[in-house]
Amino acid sequence: MIIVLKSNVSDEQILNFSNLLTEKYDIKVNTWRGTHSTVLGLLGDTHLIDSEALQAKEIVESVKRVQEPYKKANRAFHPQNTVITVGNSKIGDGKLSLIAGPCSVESKEQITGIAKAVKESGAGFLRGGAFKPRTSPYAFQGLRGEGIELLLEAKKETGLPIVTEIMSIAHLDLFEDVDVIQVGARNMQNFELLKELGKTNKPILLKRGLANTVEETLMSAEYIMSQGNDRVILCERGVRTFETYTRNTLDISAIPIFKKLSHLPVVVDPSHSGGIAWLVEPLCLAAVAAGADGLIVEVHNDPAHALCDGAQSITPKMFDTLAKKLSAVKNNI
Amino acid sequence: MIIVLKSNVSDEQILNFSNLLTEKYDIKVNTWRGTHSTVLGLLGDTHLIDSEALQAKEIVESVKRVQEPYKKANRAFHPQNTVITVGNSKIGDGKLSLIAGPCSVESKEQITGIAKAVKESGAGFLRGGAFKPRTSPYAFQGLRGEGIELLLEAKKETGLPIVTEIMSIAHLDLFEDVDVIQVGARNMQNFELLKELGKTNKPILLKRGLANTVEETLMSAEYIMSQGNDRVILCERGVRTFETYTRNTLDISAIPIFKKLSHLPVVVDPSHSGGIAWLVEPLCLAAVAAGADGLIVEVHNDPAHALCDGAQSITPKMFDTLAKKLSAVKNNI
Amino acid sequence: MIIVLKSNVSDEQILNFSNLLTEKYDIKVNTWRGTHSTVLGLLGDTHLIDSEALQAKEIVESVKRVQEPYKKANRAFHPQNTVITVGNSKIGDGKLSLIAGPCSVESKEQITGIAKAVKESGAGFLRGGAFKPRTSPYAFQGLRGEGIELLLEAKKETGLPIVTEIMSIAHLDLFEDVDVIQVGARNMQNFELLKELGKTNKPILLKRGLANTVEETLMSAEYIMSQGNDRVILCERGVRTFETYTRNTLDISAIPIFKKLSHLPVVVDPSHSGGIAWLVEPLCLAAVAAGADGLIVEVHNDPAHALCDGAQSITPKMFDTLAKKLSAVKNNI
Amino acid sequence: MIIVLKSNVSDEQILNFSNLLTEKYDIKVNTWRGTHSTVLGLLGDTHLIDSEALQAKEIVESVKRVQEPYKKANRAFHPQNTVITVGNSKIGDGKLSLIAGPCSVESKEQITGIAKAVKESGAGFLRGGAFKPRTSPYAFQGLRGEGIELLLEAKKETGLPIVTEIMSIAHLDLFEDVDVIQVGARNMQNFELLKELGKTNKPILLKRGLANTVEETLMSAEYIMSQGNDRVILCERGVRTFETYTRNTLDISAIPIFKKLSHLPVVVDPSHSGGIAWLVEPLCLAAVAAGADGLIVEVHNDPAHALCDGAQSITPKMFDTLAKKLSAVKNNI
Repeated sequence: MIIVLKSNVSDEQILNFSNLLTEKYDIKVNTWRGTHSTVLGLLGDTHLIDSEALQAKEIVESVKRVQEPYKKANRAFHPQNTVITVGNSKIGDGKLSLIAGPCSVESKEQITGIAKAVKESGAGFLRGGAFKPRTSPYAFQGLRGEGIELLLEAKKETGLPIVTEIMSIAHLDLFEDVDVIQVGARNMQNFELLKELGKTNKPILLKRGLANTVEETLMSAEYIMSQGNDRVILCERGVRTFETYTRNTLDISAIPIFKKLSHLPVVVDPSHSGGIAWLVEPLCLAAVAAGADGLIVEVHNDPAHALCDGAQSITPKMFDTLAKKLSAVKNNI
Repeated sequence: MIIVLKSNVSDEQILNFSNLLTEKYDIKVNTWRGTHSTVLGLLGDTHLIDSEALQAKEIVESVKRVQEPYKKANRAFHPQNTVITVGNSKIGDGKLSLIAGPCSVESKEQITGIAKAVKESGAGFLRGGAFKPRTSPYAFQGLRGEGIELLLEAKKETGLPIVTEIMSIAHLDLFEDVDVIQVGARNMQNFELLKELGKTNKPILLKRGLANTVEETLMSAEYIMSQGNDRVILCERGVRTFETYTRNTLDISAIPIFKKLSHLPVVVDPSHSGGIAWLVEPLCLAAVAAGADGLIVEVHNDPAHALCDGAQSITPKMFDTLAKKLSAVKNNI
Repeated sequence: MIIVLKSNVSDEQILNFSNLLTEKYDIKVNTWRGTHSTVLGLLGDTHLIDSEALQAKEIVESVKRVQEPYKKANRAFHPQNTVITVGNSKIGDGKLSLIAGPCSVESKEQITGIAKAVKESGAGFLRGGAFKPRTSPYAFQGLRGEGIELLLEAKKETGLPIVTEIMSIAHLDLFEDVDVIQVGARNMQNFELLKELGKTNKPILLKRGLANTVEETLMSAEYIMSQGNDRVILCERGVRTFETYTRNTLDISAIPIFKKLSHLPVVVDPSHSGGIAWLVEPLCLAAVAAGADGLIVEVHNDPAHALCDGAQSITPKMFDTLAKKLSAVKNNI
Repeated sequence: MIIVLKSNVSDEQILNFSNLLTEKYDIKVNTWRGTHSTVLGLLGDTHLIDSEALQAKEIVESVKRVQEPYKKANRAFHPQNTVITVGNSKIGDGKLSLIAGPCSVESKEQITGIAKAVKESGAGFLRGGAFKPRTSPYAFQGLRGEGIELLLEAKKETGLPIVTEIMSIAHLDLFEDVDVIQVGARNMQNFELLKELGKTNKPILLKRGLANTVEETLMSAEYIMSQGNDRVILCERGVRTFETYTRNTLDISAIPIFKKLSHLPVVVDPSHSGGIAWLVEPLCLAAVAAGADGLIVEVHNDPAHALCDGAQSITPKMFDTLAKKLSAVKNNI
């Protein structure tokens, strides 16, 4: 970490400030004093240092991190890829993992039917929304506890591990048999939720927030990991921009960047990124080509009658065709 | 609501679709059939209709709302300004309300000292963070329950009602004596939290999310109000853009827009918008000139040693000068 | 086009407005009068109608386009892909076109050396900046006219058609022997330049602006085409967002969207999108998987000593490896 | 300027790199070598250094500017406010300057009538578009040369200096009698145009681009000033964000930031920022409260029949009321 001090600081101020830093943190401070400005170089483990707090000090002009502010999620400290295993399914092992299923769980027939179909096409996980974050309080909020029951029934029939979203710590008991707990984009910085999930032993699929940077996403992963749960799956699902044709703008660059900065597996959600069914295929192909470990795709047997987000769902038949194309690309990069 | 159908739909499909709509909602459907496209006009109370679900129907080309999708927060249905009264303090009554205090509660001396000072300068409410949302799990997370105790002591000494942020439903009991509960930007779409707060009888200060539109903010207010709690205060605190000089970009236009679309009071947070102490004054002046009902300002007696966000805090003395300037502008618009 | 009128308009106002529309444009107007609002449906060729001007009318509540506002660039009117042929090279013919070369032309040895190398690896076009748009007036502005001379020498030696950027109509004479004229992102809405280029017979590589939508990009293509020049190549090169890790955010979705909405070929610039050399490969692979017709890649024999943008350039050797990987993906989608 | 080198650089590489820097620029280099990284501090006049080029060097990890990259526009080197005088009108002299007039010049009666009205209400300058940048090639492109003639007639009748936009160097001759030349947002980085305008002796009103930072705007001012023309007026007119209610998002913070970083006068365009007539007043009031030197406001005697942008124009009567309110605020901040 490099700290540029203001031009008019005295030797005494610099000394006091350096002492304050070395007392509080396990670091060494090197001072380089120029004619116009003074620069402090902090050596050692700086990830515990609150750079915003330093920035506020009266004598500080600016602060520049050299190390990343996350550690457990950082590839520098964990060069090996993290592989997450759930039952017979894996994410991060070099093969392409497919997580598929409807936006909302609607009925036993629906979820079991889709589960069987996507398993047949090669999906390793079943997704389905039981608790649904909706912009309007008047929109369908999901079957909630009942939805989780139906997912578990579909799991029993197909053996597919299930992935479903949690919206509140208060519902944690209901997730006891859920295989992978999803944190939605709107809750990516719900830090109290992240800390609680860090105390569980479940893999957490963490979606990047609509306006969150790659670094902030890794800091949210660090929240979970700092509590002892190392099994985090990062999910790129598009960020909010000025473009209105798509619901969000898929940040394809985030895939190789996450892979470089972190050892955690990365999946991509093409359905929510684009919000348009015919975009799912090209976005999936692009994500795989860019190095994604997996995809989480909305599949519905009857998109036009889906209770939510039907506009972006594809049919089981389209998913089957897609899975074949994805294998071809995966095998050729 | 206007629905444009695809060019190749049959008369029968149109009829079936219209019937489906009139059975489900209390509306009338008018059909206008052109050579190339068919347009349906929906009359009646359309705010319960899920336009995204309609958008997904196979025969639908696009959907356009004419009415807003919120009702309780809508000025069209409640032309009078909502005035929120807490003890002797009010927000929304035509006078300028000042909410002031430190980013974090740190000690009894600190919070009581600041409370006295800002009251002296005309503040009607004391703010102070007990639960602190921080990007890093390694940064100071607030004094939490103890922080609320200290705020209550400052209230006892000064009579100022207190405003503090909630981060989880699990902490609700601790907020029993808090006067105004704040929902932070990162939790603006934590819908389960909003619903619970809608069941309390506390005024809720709802901060706009970093990447949320004005309409989404009003929909989050609607979440709270739909559960019976009408006392919501909207707070503009800057949105995320490409500009890096400021922490966020204060959307000054949101003030008159919120006031036009909604009857709820609007306060502005210049401290988090800019993230820079010397920007607080011009942003406050601008917010008042644009019609804000109040301001929520970070004031710290020792910004350089603040445990968080000191860079954007002003001193009690600066706040006193500011309050006088604000009155002058408020009296001349 | 659908026009929603305000609730209080009289029959006479509606009639007058309808007459005004039918007199000015070759359209028919259908009126649907509801209890609360009145909707006009405009039938016919509406792309000449200025929807913003209509929006300003006192009786108009809002305007919604059903047709796109561009015509010559619109796939609806030209279902066949446009193929652009220059010498022996093509773009848009179903094969992958590679445009490669340095950010700036620096010397005869440099540009000729790179030209030979990239041709060897399969590039069909040589790119190189002669006129350089730089944020700072003190940064290297390119070799300008001399740079074009050097490109032409490299063309003579290799036979590769050349692509280079124009920054002002005043330089048009210097581009007489240039094969493809590039319009940079900063000039995408330099409409006077677009109109002049529309009067030439050169293919125009039009880069999307940093904050321009897909539709605005197509409208800029329409500017060129409206003057008679149909040979436009669309180029996605990243948009500006809040993310700071990359220089810009590549909008991968724009590729399939451009292909759906327009018949024009689409190329992608991974170098300026990411601004980082190691991101070039994954972004190229993703672009090809998403359906791009071509790529425009910065290749420099000595990136560390490049006079500009070296951070994002790859070496000829890296380009050679990349070209092979791209073929493998292209052949498997 | 601080340069962080990669961890594995040799002493020889550092020495060579330092020598390269001191030979090329008039600076001194201080080296601070740590265990894990090496930091170079560059002292002297660094604004000529191309930090992007440095960033590309193989041994460089990252570059951090301490000084701003602009000099002539920088308040640090010119502490006094620049006051721009045109005839009897001034901008930047501490009083509020009003620039008013229609989006487009349409006829002699229109422009002269509006000119008289706005002068009566206190405007010091007449604005009016002769060359109009329009997204669609099919929309009205302005009266062009004839529009300038009409502006000059209105000037003759009222004495008001005129402000109008240039879109191409090729039209420069037509601007001989124009008092203030405007560069539109879409041309803010049309560097060739900026350089030519830097060779004139006209004040230049430079609008911030839709997706340009404060720093980039100052760099564009520097382009003009680097050619000898010091009379630049900065104009904030809103940036592009995800919010769709307004056309753009007025960045109110940019006003005090421009004033702090630069000595140039700052005006605000509330008409294009919001795109809505009823927003003009609150945005003007906010801009003045935040410290703007002037405002550029669209005023049309008949907004509903304006040939462009009528939706955001106010009437002369509204402008008169507004001017009075603005004086009251200006006198009380």
